[in-house]
Amino acid sequence: MKSITQTRLGILGGGQLGRMLIQEAINYNISISILDPDPDAPCKNICDHFEVGSLGDYETVYQFGKNLDLLTIEIEKVNIEALEDLEKKGVVVYPQPRIIRLIQDKGLQKQFFKENDIPTSHFQLFNSREQLKAANIHFPFIQKLRRDGYDGKGVKKIADANDLDEAFDKPSLAEKLVDFEKEIAVIVARNEDGEMTTFPMVEMDFNPQVNLVEFLISPSEYHFDIQQMAENIAKKIASSLKIVGILAVEMFLTKDHQILVNELAPRPHNSGHQTIEGNYTSQFEQHLRAIFNLPLGDTRCLTNAIMINLLGEEGYEGIAEYEGLEEILKKDGVYVHLYGKKFTKPFRKMGHITIVDENREKAIEKAKFVKEHIKVKA
Amino acid sequence: MKSITQTRLGILGGGQLGRMLIQEAINYNISISILDPDPDAPCKNICDHFEVGSLGDYETVYQFGKNLDLLTIEIEKVNIEALEDLEKKGVVVYPQPRIIRLIQDKGLQKQFFKENDIPTSHFQLFNSREQLKAANIHFPFIQKLRRDGYDGKGVKKIADANDLDEAFDKPSLAEKLVDFEKEIAVIVARNEDGEMTTFPMVEMDFNPQVNLVEFLISPSEYHFDIQQMAENIAKKIASSLKIVGILAVEMFLTKDHQILVNELAPRPHNSGHQTIEGNYTSQFEQHLRAIFNLPLGDTRCLTNAIMINLLGEEGYEGIAEYEGLEEILKKDGVYVHLYGKKFTKPFRKMGHITIVDENREKAIEKAKFVKEHIKVKA
Repeated sequence: MKSITQTRLGILGGGQLGRMLIQEAINYNISISILDPDPDAPCKNICDHFEVGSLGDYETVYQFGKNLDLLTIEIEKVNIEALEDLEKKGVVVYPQPRIIRLIQDKGLQKQFFKENDIPTSHFQLFNSREQLKAANIHFPFIQKLRRDGYDGKGVKKIADANDLDEAFDKPSLAEKLVDFEKEIAVIVARNEDGEMTTFPMVEMDFNPQVNLVEFLISPSEYHFDIQQMAENIAKKIASSLKIVGILAVEMFLTKDHQILVNELAPRPHNSGHQTIEGNYTSQFEQHLRAIFNLPLGDTRCLTNAIMINLLGEEGYEGIAEYEGLEEILKKDGVYVHLYGKKFTKPFRKMGHITIVDENREKAIEKAKFVKEHIKVKA
Repeated sequence: MKSITQTRLGILGGGQLGRMLIQEAINYNISISILDPDPDAPCKNICDHFEVGSLGDYETVYQFGKNLDLLTIEIEKVNIEALEDLEKKGVVVYPQPRIIRLIQDKGLQKQFFKENDIPTSHFQLFNSREQLKAANIHFPFIQKLRRDGYDGKGVKKIADANDLDEAFDKPSLAEKLVDFEKEIAVIVARNEDGEMTTFPMVEMDFNPQVNLVEFLISPSEYHFDIQQMAENIAKKIASSLKIVGILAVEMFLTKDHQILVNELAPRPHNSGHQTIEGNYTSQFEQHLRAIFNLPLGDTRCLTNAIMINLLGEEGYEGIAEYEGLEEILKKDGVYVHLYGKKFTKPFRKMGHITIVDENREKAIEKAKFVKEHIKVKA
């Protein structure tokens, strides 16, 4: 491959993940082109070349990529056929299109887990609501669309027979409801040479209303054995897939301390935002190192870090205003990341805040203060 | 003032300092316009609006600034009259034009030190080489151009009478040669409310050939009393000036442990690059907090950090190539910052590398390894 400063990198998607990737890529003089359907996408003004176009359209993706050297993604919902054809033409695509194809489909993901002895909850696949109804699955269960679900969308809890009429009528999977103690995640990185490294396991608390991460704590305080088990699972998945890039592995820690893999994301992920300040290497830098086949960075934690998603406040829609910024910046170790989105709406991811402290309890206390005082209104 | 996300910020200068300022400004959704004479300046592709034009030209600077809300600088050599007129028109300019005017002129700087009881080496001002010759100053001494010196340019050592013919024939100052033990620096920040904070003192080793920082070590290991003395001097200068923004104060620590102020820079500075990884808050974020009148950030060190300037290798001129990148990235805690300059030439500042380690000796060892292995060639 060309040297890093002479490689023309394209990113499919120009949202916040692309934006934070660019912030790191600036350190390596990487020339970046972005494709995104939104003319006001967060990456718009901070890349070398910004193109508006559909990520799902074969021709758009192919034309975008054909003069670039290396392509990566910040969202899985992209046209795979175009990426495969670009690969044949000699453009390097990391993560590999076959992996994006697998992960795009939660049904295929689950089958992959099963075939590779990756622990995951029991599941069944369905093509329609009728099929689902006919299967007589034990209530309660979770129904997930096989495709296009993200940020808590495309997931439903089916509590009893009454809920079945509201079930998705599309290809989906039904999953046993996991009685978990904690949601955890490990981000693993793998480069072309096969070097592999994991970030320390994190713990996440979700907002049940919208199924988005509300509080993320790094590092986890669970016993070393559990952390090692989680990291080993993440490594096993990454090496089975032979992925190049980073892979976020979301898992459930059950009440009897078994780990079940929930789902994968082959790109920078919400469960790694705290690495920017909390770890020696950030997930964004690690992704760049992996796809450029550079030695991977030190993943150790520098300190305790808590990440809070900054969501659009309920009841407000319009040009975003950030209430309480000054208040929270008075506290030490509070880092604000706004995503450059002009308009807010309820629960839109507008930014995140990372809070660090050598003392874990103090970090949690500060994070609660931050959560109470910062609001995105219009 | 408007809220931070609605303020249109202009930066005079689009070099590496502007570039690193933008990397932080992205976190606050700050809309940024850049003015720089070089159409390929490092900030070119990462700002909302990039304008090519002379920083010294009244009309260019005035037109650039008149529709912005807030202006700052990343280089002192700018048209002050335009900034003063923009201020009258209601554009906020930080640092204040009167301070940039003072600091542009090393003669005025020295007089300011004298008038405010800031310790500095003895000096005399001259308008021409003839005047200088006639003064019969005790050899050896340092001659500095009053204006436009930077990065080691505009400074000469006059060792004896023979050197006088080579002396600058422009307004200059002659300074007693300080027999120093170490060059040190403190960066101080002050916001509109008058809140003030200093970064821990750093130690610098200069390359004698080109008078550029070669090794910077943070934090200093000198006795607490010396560090406090240095920080107090920096604070005294910042409060005398009532500066808004950050101010780098370069000082000499003499062999008998007196501190003499060398010179000032009212902007992010080479002596603060290590704060990006080494401190809770970086100098770039601190400058933004100061000029937006936000609470200042925690300046404490996270760990030992060493900064090495990455200069164009002697004997190479042309499109830059970075030799040894992979080699140095194998070491933990090595952070690369390339400045996006396409062409290298001998001693051009092409980037910097920060090396961190909890163990100071290990950090130094790694830094030496990095220095030996990374080269900018063409």
